[in-house]
Amino acid sequence: MEIVGRVADVEKLVREARADGRTVGLVATMGCLHEGHLTLLRTARAAHGLVVASIFVNPLQFGPGEDYAVYPRDLDRDAGLAAGAGCDVLFAPPVAEMYPQGLDSMLTYVTVRDITDRLCGASRPGHFRGMATVVAKLFNIVAPDVAYFGQKDAQQVVVVRRMAADLNMNVRIVAVPTVREADGLALSSRNMYLNPAERQAALVLSRALGLAAARLKAGRRDAAAIRKAMGDLVVGEPLAACEYVAVCDPVTLRELDRVEGPALVALAVRIGKTRLIDNLLWEG
Amino acid sequence: MEIVGRVADVEKLVREARADGRTVGLVATMGCLHEGHLTLLRTARAAHGLVVASIFVNPLQFGPGEDYAVYPRDLDRDAGLAAGAGCDVLFAPPVAEMYPQGLDSMLTYVTVRDITDRLCGASRPGHFRGMATVVAKLFNIVAPDVAYFGQKDAQQVVVVRRMAADLNMNVRIVAVPTVREADGLALSSRNMYLNPAERQAALVLSRALGLAAARLKAGRRDAAAIRKAMGDLVVGEPLAACEYVAVCDPVTLRELDRVEGPALVALAVRIGKTRLIDNLLWEG
Repeated sequence: MEIVGRVADVEKLVREARADGRTVGLVATMGCLHEGHLTLLRTARAAHGLVVASIFVNPLQFGPGEDYAVYPRDLDRDAGLAAGAGCDVLFAPPVAEMYPQGLDSMLTYVTVRDITDRLCGASRPGHFRGMATVVAKLFNIVAPDVAYFGQKDAQQVVVVRRMAADLNMNVRIVAVPTVREADGLALSSRNMYLNPAERQAALVLSRALGLAAARLKAGRRDAAAIRKAMGDLVVGEPLAACEYVAVCDPVTLRELDRVEGPALVALAVRIGKTRLIDNLLWEG
Repeated sequence: MEIVGRVADVEKLVREARADGRTVGLVATMGCLHEGHLTLLRTARAAHGLVVASIFVNPLQFGPGEDYAVYPRDLDRDAGLAAGAGCDVLFAPPVAEMYPQGLDSMLTYVTVRDITDRLCGASRPGHFRGMATVVAKLFNIVAPDVAYFGQKDAQQVVVVRRMAADLNMNVRIVAVPTVREADGLALSSRNMYLNPAERQAALVLSRALGLAAARLKAGRRDAAAIRKAMGDLVVGEPLAACEYVAVCDPVTLRELDRVEGPALVALAVRIGKTRLIDNLLWEG
């Protein structure tokens, strides 16, 4: 595996692989790799001649008061894990490589309206604009045939898919199922912020989703009742503060009245100071 | 020359040319081709194995009350002219091909801030967002090595260059000098809106630029004085209404106090109902 920090270097490696007739898979991450990321890498490895992972804690997608400064960074550890999962090129640029004129002189943004105002977007203004912008940059740098994203960040998948379609980006977006701990907690780099009591309380997210799944399987179709039951369950956990519970259309992210077809059931909960998200896709 | 209306068809033609080792030049137009566009095509022809021209009157970059509905469209005439100038592929999509879900369901925009608020941007809110978005789409569809733009639309060149750099688009932007009538009028598809008296009055734009050039050549450096002299000249033309006169930095588009290096001298003038622009690049 090659570790590169410069845009020109990753572009050169991709060009060479393409000249060899290899296809390119991209896994864009913020590092602090866990089994979820490694599953994305293994999925890409099975499909492509060249697997590129990016590690970039993108300042543009963090709001004031969010955890940009303290977000865990450990390139040596990440490099070992990525190589073990089949990564060929690890692109880990410094901020000045991605924003060479500085953040204040970055004038161009990719904005996706409407769907970015909902769910996580409501409490994280600017987040999806920063995410979409850096993903567009990475797509232009790596020119992947396929980009792999974790279904855990469901809204990210929806926004990236929409951006790629709206802007005719020549890339296929594949969502890979969420990887969970044995007790149900969805893997997230932010789980490491949790103390043992919070770690236990964090199970409220997957439990709420389990409750929704049980109701849907039982034929219950009233979305508001499902949201209410999930919210009540979260409220019953003293260490948890519910930010949102959504039972929405999986493309438009508009809240549903009744679940008559596919639905995205999603929630965001603060456990202490740590904001966690989780979701399930109901196929309908 | 092949005329195609579908994204998939132009992508296929480009892929085949690339497989042959040909490079790709793109000339993005709104049709109603004139000698300015044909110069762009001939410039591309001299440099590339595949020359693609797009003709698309992009509804996203017209404001309410602008000339979207009446903008001249004549594909047969344009096709003959493009073929004669060396175009290989003429991509002329219907609106529904570029915005398949409709304009209201187009959620993604490329926005370039700051430099799009200046000059033409001040009186055409949304114009540069619509232009940047459709140019990003065309870049993704055609994946050109080089895209050619007329220097007549100076701010468009600045915005597209900035977008390409900020988003790591893998394309070189080349500005081709403005083509003029013998009497100095810059070629524009909108010149055809002018009646004979207006056509004569329209010379005030190139005359104002000539006045600026003469002052700069004479060593005059006071930008405000140049703006004032140009504005006075425009005001002296009864059929003309001055929208702006700028003597600005050619990258940031910020107005200059003194012209100590390169400068963009630009103006927009209404002649009757027709809005015309022109500019000169002072190398400093």
